[in-house]
Amino acid sequence: MTATSSRTRLRRLPARGDHDRETIDAILDEALVSHMGFVHDDHPVVVPTLHARIGNEVLLHGSAASRALRTLAGGAPLCLTVTLIDGLVLARSAFHHSINYRSVMLFGTARLVDGPEEKAAALEAFTEKLVPGRWAAVRWPSRQELKGTKVLALPIDEASAKLRTGPPGDDEEDYAMDTWAGVVPLTLVAGAPQDDPRLREGIPQPEHVRALVGS
Amino acid sequence: MTATSSRTRLRRLPARGDHDRETIDAILDEALVSHMGFVHDDHPVVVPTLHARIGNEVLLHGSAASRALRTLAGGAPLCLTVTLIDGLVLARSAFHHSINYRSVMLFGTARLVDGPEEKAAALEAFTEKLVPGRWAAVRWPSRQELKGTKVLALPIDEASAKLRTGPPGDDEEDYAMDTWAGVVPLTLVAGAPQDDPRLREGIPQPEHVRALVGS
Repeated sequence: MTATSSRTRLRRLPARGDHDRETIDAILDEALVSHMGFVHDDHPVVVPTLHARIGNEVLLHGSAASRALRTLAGGAPLCLTVTLIDGLVLARSAFHHSINYRSVMLFGTARLVDGPEEKAAALEAFTEKLVPGRWAAVRWPSRQELKGTKVLALPIDEASAKLRTGPPGDDEEDYAMDTWAGVVPLTLVAGAPQDDPRLREGIPQPEHVRALVGS
Repeated sequence: MTATSSRTRLRRLPARGDHDRETIDAILDEALVSHMGFVHDDHPVVVPTLHARIGNEVLLHGSAASRALRTLAGGAPLCLTVTLIDGLVLARSAFHHSINYRSVMLFGTARLVDGPEEKAAALEAFTEKLVPGRWAAVRWPSRQELKGTKVLALPIDEASAKLRTGPPGDDEEDYAMDTWAGVVPLTLVAGAPQDDPRLREGIPQPEHVRALVGS
């Protein structure tokens, strides 16, 4: 179980709130992109970023010169939100239209991941997150690349999941209407891999890439 | 063209920045979910939400009791970010792995959309955004439903788009490697519509719903 705070205790639609740690980890692991929010000059800034998870921490990375990462490495409060879209919820009334989704919000302060070994482990996690099996096939980061990369780690302590599943919920009297209602599932699907135009001849698509297609 | 500010003038990777208004509108219109960031007790909060666009404004809506919408209706600064995921960028080096994406950030202050007619027009935009053609098929909002819904409008004035397209960019010496490199396209795809378990018999899936499949 995960600690909660007044920020993560949901005010609206408590039925959609879920604080189960397994659910939170599964959403973080499936989502490719997260949105990191921080405060800059009293104003909110929300930046999309890739993330990866190792155990109890979510990792973020970017250029050492990135303003967002420098702000966060300095101890600025962070809100990291990820959202997976699962379907269109088409009700009989306009009012009850919605989407099915799974979302996680994390609050906290990130720590700077500094030693080269821990940094390399983070880059391995990012690479394997994009494509399982990819790390073994690529050139690993040089000392200079590691130096130019800033890695932050946010503990999964103050976390909540929120989700909607299932069919529309219409007002009782609307179920008598002649309107079709239901759910249209939405999935992020991988298409046929496209060779780099500069790919050397005779290099086939590896199994770890072909395994993505249709998934 | 769109006004810029120090916040939307991109600091990193200027080549990925794009301030063209048509690009911004197209990304806003294609994205189903946006992430709205605001400041609460000096801390950032990032909440996923549906949005729709009418002309020069992005509309947000939710329960009249929502904390986020009450905060924003009170004039709190807002950052709204949307991100579309287009593909995995698989380079020869771990360092140059990335994703192809299209993203928009909007900054500003939202105005409360108040008259019932303007509110109804907003709910029409939300419904048509989920499924074009849906509004004509459903029960329109009652006076009470409109009263229970808060609608905000954020002008598209301080806006920027950021995107990555195309093949990986590897270090020159890495192009000689035996590693496969390229792009795996990712698309949000609609699956077969699922009838509401409480759908009355004899109501077929309408054309506006069937048109979504595979799109």
